[in-house]
Amino acid sequence: MHSLQFTSESSSNGMVGRDFIVGGVPGVLWSPASGAADRAPLVLLGHGGGAHKKHPAMTGRAQRLVTGCGYRVAVIDAPGHGDRPRSAQDERDIAELRQAQAEGEPQGPIIVGYNARLAELAVPEWQATLDALQELPEIGAEGPVGYVGIGLGTAIGVPLVAAEPRITAAVFGPHWPDALAAHARQITVPIEFDIQWDDEHIPREAGLALFDAFASKEKTLHANAGKHLELPRFEVDSAVRFLVRHLGLTVTSPA
Amino acid sequence: MHSLQFTSESSSNGMVGRDFIVGGVPGVLWSPASGAADRAPLVLLGHGGGAHKKHPAMTGRAQRLVTGCGYRVAVIDAPGHGDRPRSAQDERDIAELRQAQAEGEPQGPIIVGYNARLAELAVPEWQATLDALQELPEIGAEGPVGYVGIGLGTAIGVPLVAAEPRITAAVFGPHWPDALAAHARQITVPIEFDIQWDDEHIPREAGLALFDAFASKEKTLHANAGKHLELPRFEVDSAVRFLVRHLGLTVTSPA
Repeated sequence: MHSLQFTSESSSNGMVGRDFIVGGVPGVLWSPASGAADRAPLVLLGHGGGAHKKHPAMTGRAQRLVTGCGYRVAVIDAPGHGDRPRSAQDERDIAELRQAQAEGEPQGPIIVGYNARLAELAVPEWQATLDALQELPEIGAEGPVGYVGIGLGTAIGVPLVAAEPRITAAVFGPHWPDALAAHARQITVPIEFDIQWDDEHIPREAGLALFDAFASKEKTLHANAGKHLELPRFEVDSAVRFLVRHLGLTVTSPA
Repeated sequence: MHSLQFTSESSSNGMVGRDFIVGGVPGVLWSPASGAADRAPLVLLGHGGGAHKKHPAMTGRAQRLVTGCGYRVAVIDAPGHGDRPRSAQDERDIAELRQAQAEGEPQGPIIVGYNARLAELAVPEWQATLDALQELPEIGAEGPVGYVGIGLGTAIGVPLVAAEPRITAAVFGPHWPDALAAHARQITVPIEFDIQWDDEHIPREAGLALFDAFASKEKTLHANAGKHLELPRFEVDSAVRFLVRHLGLTVTSPA
């Protein structure tokens, strides 16, 4: 088992961010500056394609969860993202994607395969990260664990949540069902799932098909008018409320 | 123009309910016991089929809006509901509906026609009620107005909101699109729309088609796993947050 090394620490707005490495994968752990409660919930955030562990979409969500809810939040760079080098295959996939974008060709067929390849690498990385985080005395293995992912973070998160019984609630964003529906059918934990009703990349039927595939007894689809990148900001707050409903807000130690 | 007569008053849990009559239609106006602010938002609630103005689904929502947000809330009995007599046609429609239910036949074709007939009566009743409420010195015509309706309350609310420019935000529940889509295409105000993903009465495609019909630039679909009557309670809170986003929380008088 890989252990976790902290490499640096910074603090702002009531939140401490500690960079770490697990098995060569760089990540960041955010915690309340005043310290988290024993067994505080831990939320794993999966960043989008082309983004990284400290993208504003990640730090914004972390801030709400850490200072708003007293949670801990961890993000790792996906393969070929952030501080991680791109492989030759990454470069080929990205070049193909840029070419399709430049020519106005559909991106779906390229993103589906590219993201599925990254997910195969990333799922065991996330599991090793969670193992290592739960080995830390201040975290432990008792607190609830959730997952939030958008875009690539959904492509990685769906197979991760299907494989990982420690994750008991998850929020996903829009993606194609091709590589994900089979994993979604193995997921039974509560799900909140966001799609964009006028998504110019992911056909509406594809988004609805992926939502339909989740075997969860409790699942909620939020479909908002707007294009692919126009997810309304109030959905970020909705995701926080979903996590609080399922992971709890204040967790106290057993007497 | 019909004026509004208050007929009785009661108070509980920080909320005053005043029964009223406008043009022969009975309703109830709920307000904070401590009084509402000038230009406080007014929310019109449309009850479901077979229910009435003081059904727990109405009083529960009113309580959240009145004591939680400082809003005023009005509900009127739909034609043939609550304290209002049923017409011979009402009796025939209801008998036909009960027979379809007993025989396990689809209810949609009956409910669509029945509710469309009630909506034709109810839309001008709601408009007269809103006129009369805004004539009251303590309400006036300056505050924002919203609408929340479920079931029959959606069948009445969609044509009402299409016809009534004073209503600037609305929450609707599942219904068939047959009689409503043409009205929905005239609605441009923000909408939150709830459907049940496993609705045994309203086909999924019908619910999605009605959502799709709204011309609103800002519209959100919430689809939850579960059957027709299993709308999760957290959607009631979500509707309140939607109204607060669009109608405002604390409204102060102009200087």
